[in-house]
Formats: sequence, structure tokens, C-alpha cells
Amino acid sequence: MEPDFGALDDALDAADADGYLLDADASTSDQLYLSGFDASDPFVSLYTPDETVLLVSGLEFTRAKRESRADAVRRYADYDYQEKRANNDTATARDLLYAEFLDEFGVESVLVNERFPLATADGLRDHGVSVDVDDDDTVGTIRATKTAAEVEHVKAAQDANEAAMRAAQTLIEAATVRDGVLHYEGDPLTSERVKEEIEVTLLRHGCSLDETIVACGESASIPHDRGSGPLRADETIIIDIFPRDKETKYHADMTRTFVKGDATDEAREFYDITREALDAAFDALEPGATGEDVHHAVCDVYEDAGYPTLRSDPSTETGYIHSTGHGVGLDVHEAPSVSTNATDELEPGHVVTIEPGLYDPDIGGVRLEDIVVVTEDGYENFTDYPLDFEL
Amino acid sequence: MEPDFGALDDALDAADADGYLLDADASTSDQLYLSGFDASDPFVSLYTPDETVLLVSGLEFTRAKRESRADAVRRYADYDYQEKRANNDTATARDLLYAEFLDEFGVESVLVNERFPLATADGLRDHGVSVDVDDDDTVGTIRATKTAAEVEHVKAAQDANEAAMRAAQTLIEAATVRDGVLHYEGDPLTSERVKEEIEVTLLRHGCSLDETIVACGESASIPHDRGSGPLRADETIIIDIFPRDKETKYHADMTRTFVKGDATDEAREFYDITREALDAAFDALEPGATGEDVHHAVCDVYEDAGYPTLRSDPSTETGYIHSTGHGVGLDVHEAPSVSTNATDELEPGHVVTIEPGLYDPDIGGVRLEDIVVVTEDGYENFTDYPLDFEL
Repeated sequence: MEPDFGALDDALDAADADGYLLDADASTSDQLYLSGFDASDPFVSLYTPDETVLLVSGLEFTRAKRESRADAVRRYADYDYQEKRANNDTATARDLLYAEFLDEFGVESVLVNERFPLATADGLRDHGVSVDVDDDDTVGTIRATKTAAEVEHVKAAQDANEAAMRAAQTLIEAATVRDGVLHYEGDPLTSERVKEEIEVTLLRHGCSLDETIVACGESASIPHDRGSGPLRADETIIIDIFPRDKETKYHADMTRTFVKGDATDEAREFYDITREALDAAFDALEPGATGEDVHHAVCDVYEDAGYPTLRSDPSTETGYIHSTGHGVGLDVHEAPSVSTNATDELEPGHVVTIEPGLYDPDIGGVRLEDIVVVTEDGYENFTDYPLDFEL
Repeated sequence: MEPDFGALDDALDAADADGYLLDADASTSDQLYLSGFDASDPFVSLYTPDETVLLVSGLEFTRAKRESRADAVRRYADYDYQEKRANNDTATARDLLYAEFLDEFGVESVLVNERFPLATADGLRDHGVSVDVDDDDTVGTIRATKTAAEVEHVKAAQDANEAAMRAAQTLIEAATVRDGVLHYEGDPLTSERVKEEIEVTLLRHGCSLDETIVACGESASIPHDRGSGPLRADETIIIDIFPRDKETKYHADMTRTFVKGDATDEAREFYDITREALDAAFDALEPGATGEDVHHAVCDVYEDAGYPTLRSDPSTETGYIHSTGHGVGLDVHEAPSVSTNATDELEPGHVVTIEPGLYDPDIGGVRLEDIVVVTEDGYENFTDYPLDFEL
């Protein structure tokens, strides 16, 4: 099922632009989505209401013709790039190349995304091409609404994610405690060891990931701290796993928080209130609600319980210090946002995380995160993993 | 050992710019290098000859202060971002934020890299900040010369790489052949299975990677084809592994080509000539030689043997259809290039690959790749792995 690019046609029309241009490698998900071509070096995609055309190096030409969703593929040699390069510096040769490519397709004005490379834009402008930034992130907005096939890709990645979380939880459950430190098979059980188990499990399930968070104690109180060193008993351990399916390139995302042994009263309250916050978010989540509505439902719970949030104190370093969720797809963080100022309505097909949490260096951190798809009459939670706490 | 940013001071001086600005996440290696901060969401780094300052979201503030190499860290709340955001759209609020940040440090003109985001540049220009592209890729040029510590990081990644290649070769050696297809433990041995073995081995050695190439037969004739499906006997199998150390973030890179059974005469000739090309490249490789000199030495061997190259025919799809090598560091492909038009001299501390190869859909592909560091009197080859062919 092809995505619906109608909104991009409308954006081009509104901006009076002939085409939408991307200059990026496939790690830029807009590029992967629009071109259907997975390449690790930058290439150019031109979308017009009539056709999608790629401009690639000779090295990628055969594969681009075979694998991309483009209607046509051009390569540098089609525009005598070697000769251009021999007579000019790299930047000038590139500018000439891109200008000739656009000229072939009659494109004199392009719309680009916010992170379009400045050098390419300035070069095209020098050649009389009008380059305007699409402040509305139209491609990102199209990507936010998943087709049925994309929803299945996320679900498959989440299945792998749950296997990995199970492997991590099993290690912690099997650990013994010696001098306050978790041990497994005679050695201290470290954050690194648990991450390795998670990542090998994901690989065996066809997924990869760059980072995993297994953060204990004070580390757990810093939301993006990945964690390191021996895990300790009676402290909170946040495990946040966000794998990417190697084949489909779609992500999943889930967080659980465990304590081996007994949580402190403060940490248990963190956990209990965060479960309430999770429920409150789900109560608010439905098509027509905004991301901000859902985020405010979470802030209400925390503030009512006496914890600071970024809403009540924008400079707080403890309490609820991040947003409630984000879209998940080709990027692990994408539209729509579930946060302050997210005033667009949530729509069926939006895949988002819901991940309230509380943080304090003196107590640790607790975060609980599920991943769901908004449906016509509410939402469907993909996450099939228990909310265990003390192990 | 800190890198030497003197060349950046010179570039700022030559461009009459107050500072060098980055707006990127840490997957942009210039950002990771300059900031020393590994974050998955975009943030801003400002380098001036006096200090390096980061601007990060509240979520990353604590970690940035603790982990980055910056002299100072600012967060959005320092410039009342929430208020700006409440009264403006995202793009306008961002532009105001960045302009105030630069103003605090007295910066009215910045130099940026080629891929600096257009929206940020246009926004700063609207606020009177002069934004110029550094066409010389000064930060990339600084990164090309590795410190002793960086060389050790690459060597460590290469050690892991060799363990992974060994695991792959062992699988292929242990395979049996049934109806022309490799089998292992009763099942067809697929490209995917070999990649899984490689990637699990890398994980156990502290490395990760997004992609591995295990490409057989016609797939091997397309240089960037990752390969899929059952491996076949008597056909070339290219294995190209480019892991990244998860801790240091430095890469290694190595390619070997195997045939299970008997290579065709044509494939054996591909292999023999490619070994000659590898030797010719090493004969040419020394400080003072250019990347182009080394590349031409390889092209000479191939053309003398009657094979087309991109030098002799820029539109050829068979023969030697890529460049000879590239720098390796935080990026798997970085400066310096070992290719046509690489006219800068190679210098001690440059870490590069040497990877000649031949490709033809009717024959398959052969590529042999080592990774080396240029030294005062030649080069040191990090690669300690045999050049086996028929297994």
C-alpha cells in the first residue's frame, strides 16, 4: 500500500513550487520514505506531482533502478560530472550537477525540509532556483499516519522488543545479591551485560539498535543516561529498548522499571503515581484529542500528587521532566508529538508512545512506556508486557 | 589527547567569522567530535577560539554538563523558550532562541558545514547573523588526522572485526554443499544467517553495526548490495564488515571474498588481478602521495589487464566501478578520500581503507579491503587477516 502524497501536492501548490527536493542519505527517514531507496551515502530525490526521480552516484545506479520506488533514476555521469569535477572544485561541480538535473525536469522552484543542507540550497539559489523551507514538515506529517502495513511493521518490532525485555528481566530475576550488588554466574551483573543480552536477543529476532538504556539508581534519574557499571539491589533500574527491524526499518519502543529487592517508599510512590499517570494518558487518548491534551492529563496527575513538572516549573530538574510521548516509525522519534504545544489533533493511524516518569537523583527514576496506535474509536495498545516492579 | 582545532581558528579568521556553529545530533560526527556529547536529538554547538558552548533541551542538560567537552552548557529555559513557543510557531521560536543564544556570546557571524540545516541558517540570517558555508570541510579535515588514542580506537574495532570475519569464514568452511547450495546444520546457509553470526560476534566484542554485506553471485557484482538468500557453491561471496565500537564510536572496515568450492576461471582472474591492485596501492601509499595517486595505481593495474574502470569509462557498469578507499573514524566514510580528484597529500595519522575490486553480473564480484594508518615513513596495516579465496 503506497502512502498518500496528496498533502505534498497541496504543499507544493500552496508554496507555488515545482517540486519537493531531498538531499540526504537513507538515515534521513523522509528520504527513505519518499525514495524507497536505502543508501548510506547522500543522494537526491525530486518529487513532483507527476513523478519521483533520483540522482545517485554511479556506484548506486544499478541498485537504485532495481530497489527504489522512483519512476526514473539519473546518475552523475548523465550530466558529465567527471568533467565538471575536473574543471571545478567539488562544491561548484555539485551545484552545476544539481542545477542541470533540476533543469532536465523543468523544475525552477523547490520546497525542502528544515534540515535540507545549506550548501546545496545556497548553490541552487546561485543558479536561480528558488528554495523554500517547508515549515509544516509535510513529509513528516504524511509519515505520521501509518498504513496498515506500517502498523504491522511496528507490531513486529514490538514483538522482538518484548522478547528482549523478557531476556533482561529474566537476568535480573535470576541474579543474586551480594553486598548490595546484583551478581549473575559469579560476576557482578552490569548494565553492559544486560544490554548485551538485550541486543543479542534483538539480533536473533531480526532487529538492531544503536542504544539501549539500562540505568540504575542515580543514572536512572537522568532520562537519557544509558547506564553503566554494576546494578544495585533496592534501587530503580530503568530499561528502555527501542529496536529497529533490520528489514522493514520500522521501530518499536518500550520502557519498564524494575527494583531487585525492595524499593524505597519514595521509589514505590514514584511507581504508583506513574501507573496512575499512564492510565490518565490512556483515558485521554482518542482521535480528536491533541497531543497536548494527553500530556496535560499526565501533568495533572503528577502536579496533583505534589511533584513538579516542566509545565509547573520549566527549569525543574526533578519530577516530570520530559514530554509524554512521540510518534514511532522509520524514526524512533517522529511526529506526532505528545507534549506541550502539540495542538494538532491525533488521528487514526498515528503510532505513539505514552511514557510518563518521575526522576530525582536522591530517589532514582521510574518510567513506564507503552506503544499504541490511535484507532477510529480510541487506541490499540501493541504492548503485551506486564508492569512488574519489585522482582 | 585533545584534537588540534588550530585549523578551525584559521578558517574562522579567513572567513572573518566569530564562531563555528553546528546544529545536529551526535550521529553527525562533526557534532560528536566538536561537542564530545552523544545525544540522539539535535542540539547546537558553538565553537569560538575562546570556548565551546552547547545549547541543549532541558532533557539533556544534566548529561551535557557532565559528559560533554564544552566549557559551558545552556538550555532552552535559559532563554525563556516555553514563553517563546507559546507565543510563536515552532520555527519562529527556534529562530528567536538561537539568535539570543548567539547574542549572549557576542557572535554575529558563523561558519557552518555544508550540511548545516537550511531552516536554521535562513532563520539566523533573518535575525542579522551572517551564515557562510565552510566549503573546505575544516572539521572533517581535522578529524582526518587521528590522534594516537583515535588510532587505538580503530585498531580495537578492527580486532573485533577480525573475530567477526573469522566467525563468518568458519561457517562457510563448515558448510556442506547440496544441489549447489551451502547448508549448515541441515538448513540452507543464507546471507542473513552469516550476517547474524557476524553481528552477534561483534556485539560480544563491544561493537555494533547497522549493515553488513554478505553478497553472493550476482549480488556480489553490485558493490553496495547487502546480499540475501541462500549462498551458492562455486560463486564469489563478498563479505564486507564495518563495525563501530559502541563505547568509543570509532569504526573499522574490512572486506574479504570467498568461494566455497571452485571459482570459475574468470572469478579467479578477478581475484588474482585484485591482489595485484592491492599491492600496487600499497606500493604507492606514503605521506606526500595524494589519494588520487594511490587510486591511479589501482586503475593502472586493472586497465593494463584489460578491465574497464570509471577512469577509462565513466559510465561503465562492470570492471572497477568505485574508488580505492576512504578515511575511517567516527564515520565509516570520511576524509581523506582515496579516489579521483583527491589531490590533497596524505599525511601521517590518516586512517584509510584500500579496497580494489572487480564486478560483472555474469562473473560475480571480488573485493579485498584492508585498513591502514599513514605513518611518517609509509603506512602501518592494521589488518591481520589472511587473504583466503577458495575455501
